[in-house]
Amino acid sequence: MIIVCNKNASTKSVDELVKRLEEVAQTHISKGENSIVIGLVGDTSKLDPEDIKAYPIVEKVQRVSEPFKLANRKFHEADTVIDIGGVKIGGGDFAVMAGPCSVETEEQIVYTAKMVKQSGAKILRGGAFKPRTSPYAFRGLKAEGIRLLEIAKKETGLPIVTELMSLDHLEYFENVDIIQIGARNMQNFEMLSEIGQINKPILLKRGLANTIEEWLMSAEYIMANGNENVILCERGIRTFETALRNTYDLACVPYMKALTHLPIIGDPSHATGKARLVRPLARATKAVGADGLMIEVHPNPAKALCDGAQSVTPEEFELIMQEL
Amino acid sequence: MIIVCNKNASTKSVDELVKRLEEVAQTHISKGENSIVIGLVGDTSKLDPEDIKAYPIVEKVQRVSEPFKLANRKFHEADTVIDIGGVKIGGGDFAVMAGPCSVETEEQIVYTAKMVKQSGAKILRGGAFKPRTSPYAFRGLKAEGIRLLEIAKKETGLPIVTELMSLDHLEYFENVDIIQIGARNMQNFEMLSEIGQINKPILLKRGLANTIEEWLMSAEYIMANGNENVILCERGIRTFETALRNTYDLACVPYMKALTHLPIIGDPSHATGKARLVRPLARATKAVGADGLMIEVHPNPAKALCDGAQSVTPEEFELIMQEL
Amino acid sequence: MIIVCNKNASTKSVDELVKRLEEVAQTHISKGENSIVIGLVGDTSKLDPEDIKAYPIVEKVQRVSEPFKLANRKFHEADTVIDIGGVKIGGGDFAVMAGPCSVETEEQIVYTAKMVKQSGAKILRGGAFKPRTSPYAFRGLKAEGIRLLEIAKKETGLPIVTELMSLDHLEYFENVDIIQIGARNMQNFEMLSEIGQINKPILLKRGLANTIEEWLMSAEYIMANGNENVILCERGIRTFETALRNTYDLACVPYMKALTHLPIIGDPSHATGKARLVRPLARATKAVGADGLMIEVHPNPAKALCDGAQSVTPEEFELIMQEL
Amino acid sequence: MIIVCNKNASTKSVDELVKRLEEVAQTHISKGENSIVIGLVGDTSKLDPEDIKAYPIVEKVQRVSEPFKLANRKFHEADTVIDIGGVKIGGGDFAVMAGPCSVETEEQIVYTAKMVKQSGAKILRGGAFKPRTSPYAFRGLKAEGIRLLEIAKKETGLPIVTELMSLDHLEYFENVDIIQIGARNMQNFEMLSEIGQINKPILLKRGLANTIEEWLMSAEYIMANGNENVILCERGIRTFETALRNTYDLACVPYMKALTHLPIIGDPSHATGKARLVRPLARATKAVGADGLMIEVHPNPAKALCDGAQSVTPEEFELIMQEL
Repeated sequence: MIIVCNKNASTKSVDELVKRLEEVAQTHISKGENSIVIGLVGDTSKLDPEDIKAYPIVEKVQRVSEPFKLANRKFHEADTVIDIGGVKIGGGDFAVMAGPCSVETEEQIVYTAKMVKQSGAKILRGGAFKPRTSPYAFRGLKAEGIRLLEIAKKETGLPIVTELMSLDHLEYFENVDIIQIGARNMQNFEMLSEIGQINKPILLKRGLANTIEEWLMSAEYIMANGNENVILCERGIRTFETALRNTYDLACVPYMKALTHLPIIGDPSHATGKARLVRPLARATKAVGADGLMIEVHPNPAKALCDGAQSVTPEEFELIMQEL
Repeated sequence: MIIVCNKNASTKSVDELVKRLEEVAQTHISKGENSIVIGLVGDTSKLDPEDIKAYPIVEKVQRVSEPFKLANRKFHEADTVIDIGGVKIGGGDFAVMAGPCSVETEEQIVYTAKMVKQSGAKILRGGAFKPRTSPYAFRGLKAEGIRLLEIAKKETGLPIVTELMSLDHLEYFENVDIIQIGARNMQNFEMLSEIGQINKPILLKRGLANTIEEWLMSAEYIMANGNENVILCERGIRTFETALRNTYDLACVPYMKALTHLPIIGDPSHATGKARLVRPLARATKAVGADGLMIEVHPNPAKALCDGAQSVTPEEFELIMQEL
Repeated sequence: MIIVCNKNASTKSVDELVKRLEEVAQTHISKGENSIVIGLVGDTSKLDPEDIKAYPIVEKVQRVSEPFKLANRKFHEADTVIDIGGVKIGGGDFAVMAGPCSVETEEQIVYTAKMVKQSGAKILRGGAFKPRTSPYAFRGLKAEGIRLLEIAKKETGLPIVTELMSLDHLEYFENVDIIQIGARNMQNFEMLSEIGQINKPILLKRGLANTIEEWLMSAEYIMANGNENVILCERGIRTFETALRNTYDLACVPYMKALTHLPIIGDPSHATGKARLVRPLARATKAVGADGLMIEVHPNPAKALCDGAQSVTPEEFELIMQEL
Repeated sequence: MIIVCNKNASTKSVDELVKRLEEVAQTHISKGENSIVIGLVGDTSKLDPEDIKAYPIVEKVQRVSEPFKLANRKFHEADTVIDIGGVKIGGGDFAVMAGPCSVETEEQIVYTAKMVKQSGAKILRGGAFKPRTSPYAFRGLKAEGIRLLEIAKKETGLPIVTELMSLDHLEYFENVDIIQIGARNMQNFEMLSEIGQINKPILLKRGLANTIEEWLMSAEYIMANGNENVILCERGIRTFETALRNTYDLACVPYMKALTHLPIIGDPSHATGKARLVRPLARATKAVGADGLMIEVHPNPAKALCDGAQSVTPEEFELIMQEL
């Protein structure tokens, strides 16, 4: 960590700051013409740059090393490979999760599960507890939705992934294979701490406007609590461009591969909000080096109770899988 | 709601869509040279534009009326005034909430409470459960922090406001006067639904990258569950500019005053992350027409366990209050 | 165009507005419970929604049809194919433009031209006039740079593309095959009008924070002045994420293919600012359906006078071309 | 400047980099556990961090001192005060520029000039050359518009400010008192260089998505060419929020006051695009410490040929000036 202080700072105030810093790491001081620079060497992950900026003599604070450790490839060179009942995510394997935005009926979910399995999907997705901007919108079948997912799992053998919206619902997740943390809960730190104590793979979606570093820090929360089975999922970020629902940040995939050993998948359905863009972006997600995809598939998108605009039909999904 | 369809859409597919729409509201169809436009008249708040976009013939969907009702000034012209033990927020009263980012010791919180009360603050703020990006950072005194806030309340008579990070902690909030929902939980819909069933004022901070409409929809969640005592708090949004922690969106205050009857306050401490900017922005927040301020005050910012960089001293706070 | 007026608007004020609108297009009025909606049918491209919002009774104005015509696929179904001395861009052909950020010496540019040609590049890029944020930075060899590009063109037969920064420099562009308009000049409307009167293909880069619609309106400026040979180039947009120089918006490619018949290429070098990301993103750009790529190649990136961080070596470029 | 290199970098490659850096400034090297850090002391304004990142061993480059010098308050402590025929901007004076978005007729501009002068405006604004997103929209009266502004200047004695869109139009600006550089030309570096050689005050608007540092670098461009009379104008930035035209970044005013000695004014008309928000934001702009305001005033906003939605009437302007 590098701390730049005002060149007019008194010796006393610099000493005070240095004293506090040395409780944590070693310091090196160099005085330039326009500033005094303090370098910190050692483990600075416990220091929050914002706290150091509170010293009135401090002008800038810049990290040299990343604040995450368990998620950092520097300390864990090999790719993490997550095994879900034989399905592998990470380390060169490419896995596709597919299914409807919302579970609606037993028929719908079982039919979709069979279709996507036949096309090559390895994991079944389906929303039971649904985050909705409006309190007046359909919010999912909840516990019943998970029960229906379990039926589809039995019928097809596909492991299931579904979103957790509250720790109070954890009791229903016993047979869920991967717990999804949605974009809006990416910085729900209490939830991250708790699921860090569970022994199940976690699919951590990137927040709407969260940086790559914040995202990895949220993975670190889960890992620091004991659960190292984290799969990252890029699902589009919020920018000034509103023609599409979000801006799909595909460049983050190869960039992050150098920073972390965790697997990263992409979700072109949520990223764009448009079914017709899923196919070209699925190709691009694979081409860029991601470890898998999450794709929304619905037997009749126009009648979907939620997010139909971004769901492809089983026929389109079959074409996507053939191309991949 | 206006739905624009492709000019080449078949009569059958238009009829199908119209049939579904008429379950909810009345339709008017007009065919132009380049498109077919369906207008919907009636209560469309239950329709999600994204669902309608799933019909392949639909090109655009645009809302005409706001999707929020209880928070909407159109249906509730008078300003909502929230009374917290005699302190009024909204309707022309200007109330200042002040105190440390984190509660640290009894001495610190009681001393700060006395100082800010003396300068004119009406409500004491203090963090007990603290959201932190890093799992390795100090996360607040938790239940003990609330106990100390209660002591400060007894000593000074100031009502207290503090953040709720998990519904599991609600038991500690019995004597808390205003429950704060932080920016990162603004779209934690389960939490919003639950606290909507509590009979206590809620301070709802704007999410880091949430639109004004989403923010009002989150207020609507709370209100739709029965609790109409919502105070909105602008605390800066995330943009491409990183010189300051956030971009303080002051224009939203007079803009929202026309949309909603709920009170709106500003938080220049979190918006900028810099103590020296709090004073000019506190003046601007009042000048723009907000109903109050939330300001971080710490007896010794450089030794604060959290967010010291943005805390002013009690002496600076006294100057701010005199100016206001 | 749809205009939503306040339900309490007087008949007189609605009539006044309707009268003005009817000078341009036909109107349809429908009165709902909460608003009066005016629909406009006909060519509304001359109307600026902002002007209509000036009427105090107007609450919202929403376009139904796109404001661009010449660039619009609705009125020109077939892909535009641009022919540059036999090299085709658009309509299924995939063309790669490659070369150094800045032209530095004859040796450098001729050597690079030969190398990229050998690997399969069809067009040579090289900066002569360079936009730089700092007045103290190297700003290109200017006219001399173009002279050196012409030498490389003679030696290799590759057509050349280089950026125009001022209309005053046009005299040097006689032998340039494609004129590039940089991101910072995407809304330099005087420049767009002027180059619209030139008979040369234009490479129009997307502005740092310009919407897809604004970008197409800038293409429309060039086309409306007579020059329909416009190639669009996505080069990353500015967002809250600063880990990479820009956020590469690959989803815009298939999205725009439905809106416009103009060819679209991608520039992963500028989008990310990191040489090691060029290869995976070049693959993704092709996979998503773009018509070509622009890639920075420098024989010795670390000694480049400009933007070396994002340049690949000729050896890396060879690998990229093999993969494509 | 701080350069962080990979801990595994070879001595040879570090030496090579250090050799290049020492051509510009002195280096200090410190080797940590996870990285090698090179500190640069001296004038690093000629170094572009992006160029240094091209060395494969470099992981991060961070500036310690600002890259601007002439605009920097560190080297010029006193406020710059710009005198326009007796009207002062900067140094504690508060000056208001007002007038229509576009000059339309002699009657309109002379009438508006008289009205705004009477209310206390010190400078007359009016658009002659107008930047418009659409090639089909009204683009101003051009040279004739400036002639009409000159008439209004003669009649009222108010100095005039108007936008320059192309260096080719400079001949018409002889009697213009302040040349405005619009947001879309903030990084038109050729234009900045040229007007730096003119002896007239420049009003430099912030670009739609430009950082504070880039904005000051554009001021530096003008100053480095000899013209130190630069007035900065915040006019809103582009963010994810589209309810208002832009997000008005008022916090930048006090923040920048510490970085630069140049005067800064605010333009709430363009920042919000809504006339009814101009009044509260004008108050806030003064309260936050700006040196002045630019406000659009039109005798009949609904009939304005451009940007009527954001123009206030002379009567509203009178109220605004009384409040200030």
